[in-house]
Amino acid sequence: MIPTKEQLLAARERIAPYIHQTPIFRSSTIDAMTGAKVLFKSEQLQRMGAFKMRGATNAILSLSDAQRAKGVVTHSSGNFGQAVALAARSLGVRAHIVMPDSATSVKRNAVAGYGGQIQLCASTLKAREAATAAIVAQTGATALHPSNALEVIIGNATAAMELLTEQPATDILIAPVGGGGLIAGTALAAHHFAEDCITIGAEPEAVDDAYRSLQSGRIETNQTTDTIADGLRTHLGDQNFPIIQKLVAQIIRVNEAEIIEAMRLLWERCKLVVEPSSAVALAAVLKQPETFRGKTVGLILSGGNVDLSKLPF
Amino acid sequence: MIPTKEQLLAARERIAPYIHQTPIFRSSTIDAMTGAKVLFKSEQLQRMGAFKMRGATNAILSLSDAQRAKGVVTHSSGNFGQAVALAARSLGVRAHIVMPDSATSVKRNAVAGYGGQIQLCASTLKAREAATAAIVAQTGATALHPSNALEVIIGNATAAMELLTEQPATDILIAPVGGGGLIAGTALAAHHFAEDCITIGAEPEAVDDAYRSLQSGRIETNQTTDTIADGLRTHLGDQNFPIIQKLVAQIIRVNEAEIIEAMRLLWERCKLVVEPSSAVALAAVLKQPETFRGKTVGLILSGGNVDLSKLPF
Repeated sequence: MIPTKEQLLAARERIAPYIHQTPIFRSSTIDAMTGAKVLFKSEQLQRMGAFKMRGATNAILSLSDAQRAKGVVTHSSGNFGQAVALAARSLGVRAHIVMPDSATSVKRNAVAGYGGQIQLCASTLKAREAATAAIVAQTGATALHPSNALEVIIGNATAAMELLTEQPATDILIAPVGGGGLIAGTALAAHHFAEDCITIGAEPEAVDDAYRSLQSGRIETNQTTDTIADGLRTHLGDQNFPIIQKLVAQIIRVNEAEIIEAMRLLWERCKLVVEPSSAVALAAVLKQPETFRGKTVGLILSGGNVDLSKLPF
Repeated sequence: MIPTKEQLLAARERIAPYIHQTPIFRSSTIDAMTGAKVLFKSEQLQRMGAFKMRGATNAILSLSDAQRAKGVVTHSSGNFGQAVALAARSLGVRAHIVMPDSATSVKRNAVAGYGGQIQLCASTLKAREAATAAIVAQTGATALHPSNALEVIIGNATAAMELLTEQPATDILIAPVGGGGLIAGTALAAHHFAEDCITIGAEPEAVDDAYRSLQSGRIETNQTTDTIADGLRTHLGDQNFPIIQKLVAQIIRVNEAEIIEAMRLLWERCKLVVEPSSAVALAAVLKQPETFRGKTVGLILSGGNVDLSKLPF
């Protein structure tokens, strides 16, 4: 059950007043290095600094008035928590964000700054789910999943839709793969709004669950989370996996040194503050140049929320 | 003897094929903090990463064919050396760049990567000037000054010209003050291409030679160069000082903590990789908000060439 073109168009119109249409950058240095025409869709300049704003906004706007009146809740220590907080505030909806008590003050302050009601809990998945369930039981709030919900996936698709509207001759879209919400949305956009445009995923070797999932035909998990690309440590879900199976051509894996080198290129040469997850996609293009040479490549820079005191340079 | 509107228009047309028309960014966070509408003219996305590309290109294009055939030379360990190297290569002109032997390999590699012929010398002004003079004597190359030459100043003016073309209702232009070439060019653009737009300079307290020069009426120098804004350690020259005296309304001084805080805002909130000199201009807006509140402020982000291993965060 692939979401339709009409669903995607409706989402784009629905969220347009609440998000930025982000710019597309190019770099002659990167083009020379890759032999490709690389279009950087710059979601680090999205509101709150990441594409997650799109999915969060679409998910909340897709709720009924009665649901919205009761608020929303999510458990996330990262970009999705911030995105839900900011999207909810923009829409006049109360947002509860469940965060592990290990979350840094930078992350707590960001969520609080966007008006999110923070609920701290122990740093385990079980504790987070319990805290979320308690808020649902107490308030009637709707729980939002960061990546495995169709309205989130469809909202995420709007980034690639914008890119394809501006650059209809794009041959390949490439995006990082974490929980699967961005790559599934990106592939949906290519499927509905481009001719002969394929979608490729990029994933750290250390957390290559999606690569293995495509091989085995079932959702695989990761034994470790030992990658600098902290946004990509999660695994796929039952809503996005079928879309990925059907519409993603391949997943390219990159190692940690390749991620850091690509991140350095994006910062030093392109002057773009992006998070390591974004660099994973460029690292994949650099690693497997024969796939991209001579092509127009739309690369989704997922976000730019990094802790400046913890850079790998 | 203020350069004319026609000279500026001719320069803009002359250099257009060789430079980027850089984008203008806005940030709702910065607007909320300042009460102003701040337009970030993003010269960090200029070719080679800084506005200096404009002045260097205009200076070389203003030479006669006979002069160009003999090449150009400059002594600079920073952005201007790289700008001359790249501009010269784009125009098929030989460029000699005199650099102190203390220059980091990063800077040498950048100049060499742009095709510049590096001549190392001792790390004193006397040694640099001697090495430059020797190259002039030997090759007939034309020596280019980074900031105190009219064609460089006029080339630099094109950044603010672009901004005023896109945003004609700009009330205030603000730019950092180092050798005086950028602020003089910016003030010229405001003078010729805007009505009631004033120009303000921003300078580190530690190297406030321009502030003192406007007070005393003669070119002052700095006793120390103890600022993170390494592009602003130089002093004004006889070509740009009269322009600055006539057309710059005031200079706002900021301390090192204020510069670093503004730089953090630009990186963390705006996702822009900018050098400390660029942050000096934002720091000035934040320091003296009553001057800017309710105004449309065009802020020239001078460049983005930083050593990622030496960030102040």
